[in-house]
Amino acid sequence: MRLVRIRHNQQARWGRLEDDQVHLMAGTGPLTGETVQFDPAALLAPAEPTKIVCVGRNYVSHIREMGHMAQDLPREPGLFLKGPNALANPGASVRYPHWTDELHFEGELALVIGQRAQNLRPEMVPAAVLGYTCALDLTARDRQRTDLQWTRAKSADHFCPLGPWLVTDLDPTDLTVQTRVGGELRQDGRTSHMIFDVVQILTYVTRFMTLEPGDVVLTGTPDGVGPLQRGDRVEVEVGGIGTLLTEIEG
Amino acid sequence: MRLVRIRHNQQARWGRLEDDQVHLMAGTGPLTGETVQFDPAALLAPAEPTKIVCVGRNYVSHIREMGHMAQDLPREPGLFLKGPNALANPGASVRYPHWTDELHFEGELALVIGQRAQNLRPEMVPAAVLGYTCALDLTARDRQRTDLQWTRAKSADHFCPLGPWLVTDLDPTDLTVQTRVGGELRQDGRTSHMIFDVVQILTYVTRFMTLEPGDVVLTGTPDGVGPLQRGDRVEVEVGGIGTLLTEIEG
Repeated sequence: MRLVRIRHNQQARWGRLEDDQVHLMAGTGPLTGETVQFDPAALLAPAEPTKIVCVGRNYVSHIREMGHMAQDLPREPGLFLKGPNALANPGASVRYPHWTDELHFEGELALVIGQRAQNLRPEMVPAAVLGYTCALDLTARDRQRTDLQWTRAKSADHFCPLGPWLVTDLDPTDLTVQTRVGGELRQDGRTSHMIFDVVQILTYVTRFMTLEPGDVVLTGTPDGVGPLQRGDRVEVEVGGIGTLLTEIEG
Repeated sequence: MRLVRIRHNQQARWGRLEDDQVHLMAGTGPLTGETVQFDPAALLAPAEPTKIVCVGRNYVSHIREMGHMAQDLPREPGLFLKGPNALANPGASVRYPHWTDELHFEGELALVIGQRAQNLRPEMVPAAVLGYTCALDLTARDRQRTDLQWTRAKSADHFCPLGPWLVTDLDPTDLTVQTRVGGELRQDGRTSHMIFDVVQILTYVTRFMTLEPGDVVLTGTPDGVGPLQRGDRVEVEVGGIGTLLTEIEG
């Protein structure tokens, strides 16, 4: 099932997308009986998080391209945070900030939490996930190197485009993760190459951090990351989900 | 004026504290006419943030004690994030996590944002701040050294006790910041010794990160930080505000 969050009559509404119809819901819950024609321009980021938890260095190929050695492979997921201010809608135009000269794309599989999660055991993970979507983890690579932590480099306004929708019944263990810039394929990975899979990530995080409904988890990026230019069109496509388009303002 | 957030009839309510009476408010806005007797045991963390933005290394004395050199003094505020899951109420009992052997206290001046803030100019800062309070920036020092970023070390559940209330009309430029553990004075600083003051912090942060009403900013800790033991009582006292008590579960 595909869940969309859309702007409808000046309100943010959730709905089920079937063919070209959106069946509106009360919150993320039952259908209200209202149906509207699907309009991609009305799509909003499909999450209302209290926090966005991200995994760094989760693909060996990306760790190598960043210049780290195989013996540095993490034994536990390495986490960082983005704030909700970082969200951007599908199709958004994101400004290239004046304080970086190295804005990089990182395409990723993301998930949205459906119910409060603490100390998850592996078998509890599927029920805790509302659905899966695509994320563009925008990164100011130069500021990531120079700042104390990655806060500005990763959590500036609109540094987390998300969407286009949630897919609720998806096996996340072997999906393609591809990023195209200006139509050219730049990242081409598979989630089966993650060091820590979704179950390992969520059991780890919820040992010390309660995840709330709406919280977003980004699962890391494969190799192929690189710089963006003003005017670029970035597409993140995850198999079984769809394509998230982001434009970098010219 | 002191603004408290309290548990009242199973709801979280804001109010003005005058003598031992709480005058309840609608949201953080106008008085409703309801008045209740003040009960310190009903106090909640006085903020409903979308994010908690923290400044690291903002006092020269603390930078030195952490083993960094004077030539490493930051030229811009070094930021990190805590999620709302980190909040703990005044008087809370916080569990010592099993995954750290070095839980440290860091007493700080904190502020809560009153209106959406982007690209603040210095003269706009006072109107953007709802009020000031005390924060205990609990830190798993060993995990801060070993993890990729400070996420677990700083943003585990209940790692940000906050309170006891907000003081709305306070000059933050030269306040005492003291931390006592078991009644013994362990930190004794002044906000006038900050490298970046409140105006500099907020003008910097809002250049790239929109702050929302309820967001919390922690301004950094002076020297004297150190380890906690199970059973410790930690008091953070900021001049002109009051004392935030936290107990570490025995």
